Amino acid sequence: MIFDILTLLPEVCDLYCRTSIMGRARDKGLIEVRVTNIRDFATDKHRTVDDSPYGGGDGMVMMPGPLMAALESLPAEPKGRRIMLSPQGRPFDQDLAGELTREPRLTLICGRYEGLDQRALDLSGAEEISLGDFVLTGGELGALCLVDAVARLLPGVLGGKDSAQADSFMDGLLEHPHYTRPAVFQGLSVPEILLSGNHAAIERWRRNESLRHTLEKRPDLLPKVQLSQEDKEALARIKAELKNKA
Amino acid sequence: MIFDILTLLPEVCDLYCRTSIMGRARDKGLIEVRVTNIRDFATDKHRTVDDSPYGGGDGMVMMPGPLMAALESLPAEPKGRRIMLSPQGRPFDQDLAGELTREPRLTLICGRYEGLDQRALDLSGAEEISLGDFVLTGGELGALCLVDAVARLLPGVLGGKDSAQADSFMDGLLEHPHYTRPAVFQGLSVPEILLSGNHAAIERWRRNESLRHTLEKRPDLLPKVQLSQEDKEALARIKAELKNKA
Repeated sequence: MIFDILTLLPEVCDLYCRTSIMGRARDKGLIEVRVTNIRDFATDKHRTVDDSPYGGGDGMVMMPGPLMAALESLPAEPKGRRIMLSPQGRPFDQDLAGELTREPRLTLICGRYEGLDQRALDLSGAEEISLGDFVLTGGELGALCLVDAVARLLPGVLGGKDSAQADSFMDGLLEHPHYTRPAVFQGLSVPEILLSGNHAAIERWRRNESLRHTLEKRPDLLPKVQLSQEDKEALARIKAELKNKA
Repeated sequence: MIFDILTLLPEVCDLYCRTSIMGRARDKGLIEVRVTNIRDFATDKHRTVDDSPYGGGDGMVMMPGPLMAALESLPAEPKGRRIMLSPQGRPFDQDLAGELTREPRLTLICGRYEGLDQRALDLSGAEEISLGDFVLTGGELGALCLVDAVARLLPGVLGGKDSAQADSFMDGLLEHPHYTRPAVFQGLSVPEILLSGNHAAIERWRRNESLRHTLEKRPDLLPKVQLSQEDKEALARIKAELKNKA
């Protein structure tokens, strides 16, 4: 899968995609990441990419020319989706990450300053995707989140074959807690069941902890989850426990 | 304001916070960003920070020891909030960004691999904050989003004094479109009103475009917005226009 990132902060984007799991996925040829510096397509000697907004107001607006020239410099094939990171966009979530894994290529446009000239957005045909209901100084962190969230779902990118399957949101629930060595740390022990070797009981405990976390922290997620009869009984018990505690 | 970032990817965190607006805010002394490499607190010669999960399963879990040692190495004052970036957490949004600007210090803990040993999370007293309902390979991008979204609201960090006030979400609406030179680009003109010099009319047009964008892209935001009588009339006109178009 190819990721094109168009940005005014190429070093940041490049470093993240050379580091850790993204770097290994690149080295293994599982993803290709190309970073294009929009400033390379400025046409004056000061390499200007922004100008004052028409109609007045604070801040600067990214000119349409350099971005459009940068887009046109990229190979036309394979097609794929063009995405502008913007707080105005469709909120990004795990379902959308899964959907995007089916594209051969994502072209990610990062705005900076007050925003991009609206005509460039219109001409580019980019859809807007938002990381969430908050505002950042630019689209870079959003683009890197998309690369990361999508790439880690591709076969071979994570080490263990099931690593992404057990994630939060993959089945609509939050994840269960994790424990590793030492068995006792600052007086706190690992839950005994995890040392029992009883795999069925461990799976059930983990599922129940996922249900508990989701109920306590994000009850809004529960109505969308497919629950087995065993899940429903566990959830009823957890609700009763929480009620008794309160 | 002090930001402490505890991470296994110190270079990425450091570079982002040295670049562009974050870098200038640091140079001006408006924010202090300290990046601590959790791996520096490993105790074996291989600098191990992760181990297999108790109870089996794929992936590795971050050991509690190195993180707790890293936390203990930091100055105790000023206090402030400890935050673990996690998909299990409270969803981050612009209101929470505003709330966090009132802290003297934020300590941001970035997990990697399958997750952090639950005991370290419990002992650290960190609250969990989530960037959104998606999963990343680590907490770094989330931590940088928090630094960026919070820092840009601090006085002096953005150039224009009103730059953050006109953002999406600051008044509950999405932003109006932006335009800059040239007045005609690839056959597309800037909306005439922006060249009129009539500031009251421009402000009204921008407000109406904010209303239009929000209605079209994120109608879920509208019920929470304080609308003037003029806003309500504009919204009714926009709704009628959209109906006629459809």
